[in-house]
Amino acid sequence: MDKWLMSLKTATPQEGFELAIKLSQKGVEYTQPSLEIRKKLRPKYSTNADSLIAVTQVVAINYQTVAAANNYWR
Amino acid sequence: MDKWLMSLKTATPQEGFELAIKLSQKGVEYTQPSLEIRKKLRPKYSTNADSLIAVTQVVAINYQTVAAANNYWR
Amino acid sequence: MDKWLMSLKTATPQEGFELAIKLSQKGVEYTQPSLEIRKKLRPKYSTNADSLIAVTQVVAINYQTVAAANNYWR
Amino acid sequence: MDKWLMSLKTATPQEGFELAIKLSQKGVEYTQPSLEIRKKLRPKYSTNADSLIAVTQVVAINYQTVAAANNYWR
Amino acid sequence: MDKWLMSLKTATPQEGFELAIKLSQKGVEYTQPSLEIRKKLRPKYSTNADSLIAVTQVVAINYQTVAAANNYWR
Amino acid sequence: MDKWLMSLKTATPQEGFELAIKLSQKGVEYTQPSLEIRKKLRPKYSTNADSLIAVTQVVAINYQTVAAANNYWR
Repeated sequence: MDKWLMSLKTATPQEGFELAIKLSQKGVEYTQPSLEIRKKLRPKYSTNADSLIAVTQVVAINYQTVAAANNYWR
Repeated sequence: MDKWLMSLKTATPQEGFELAIKLSQKGVEYTQPSLEIRKKLRPKYSTNADSLIAVTQVVAINYQTVAAANNYWR
Repeated sequence: MDKWLMSLKTATPQEGFELAIKLSQKGVEYTQPSLEIRKKLRPKYSTNADSLIAVTQVVAINYQTVAAANNYWR
Repeated sequence: MDKWLMSLKTATPQEGFELAIKLSQKGVEYTQPSLEIRKKLRPKYSTNADSLIAVTQVVAINYQTVAAANNYWR
Repeated sequence: MDKWLMSLKTATPQEGFELAIKLSQKGVEYTQPSLEIRKKLRPKYSTNADSLIAVTQVVAINYQTVAAANNYWR
Repeated sequence: MDKWLMSLKTATPQEGFELAIKLSQKGVEYTQPSLEIRKKLRPKYSTNADSLIAVTQVVAINYQTVAAANNYWR
């Protein structure tokens, strides 16, 4: 896979949150490399509350990592 | 997306908890940007015990991050 | 919401555990503010093993936070 | 509730694991105080693989807390 | 139960991973002590993708503990 | 099992992410050693959104471990 992650450092907590989202998406991409299949799945999980909550949980876990890497932007 | 997160610092543990809730909601917003769809989903998950517990878990994970960022308000 | 969380400090590990339970309940309250609806949900999830286990998981996550805030009562 | 948790300190990693199990059970007890109901639920979840895995996950989370409290018995 | 866990220290990261698997299995054993029942459950969960993923999650959580105990084998 | 994990150290955050994926896959392999069965399961979970999200969660947990082991590549 191409280079997509150079650093866990971000300028702000919000950019860190957006990196956490990117990490979550990349986790899916590595497991299901087909963009076509991923696009087909999107309408279903993005309109299902439990799936959305599950996505948000993954983002929260990744945000712990990114926030620690940035020493919580203190 | 507009700026919505300037800092993980909060004045009190309770404000930190409320920030953890906001982070959880933002995780959903990034994944499902349509306010209309999110509003449709709300009546269902907010009256389903298992969905509520799942939301609470995401909040708990985000609260770990916020609490650490505030050095646990010690 | 009223002030309900002044500190993560507790005198003992057991009081910390009880605070973790309170944090878990508050997570639900913020998401579903109606006491009436929450009361209706209770008989179902409190007699369902998988729901109970899920609640316990949220408590365990919150207990990590409270325990760290108290330096593990060492 | 009676006093049941005086310390997170244990003599060995194994006793710490057993404390993590106790914490997990207590989480259920606080949510469902009726011993009768908990006994009824046991045959079902203890013979269901997915429920057992979920219990084990809660134990693993609590073990993180206990292990940290004991500085990993180093 | 017999003594089965003397230390969280392992010589290598891989042995630590294998200890994390053992911790996960022990969590199940404490909850369901019957070897007979556990053996019956195995064919089902070990051929079900979602159950396997759930097992792997427990292993990942336990591996966090073991890795920290070994200071990440640095 | 053969030696497959020599170190948690990686040169970059991205290689660390890829190691987290490997750890997740290995967790499955230890639980279901049959390559044949694992191959059969793949088409199903890799086209199911909820299974993919669950995989991604395991990766996120393992990435926490790898990132900590590398001091977040700071």
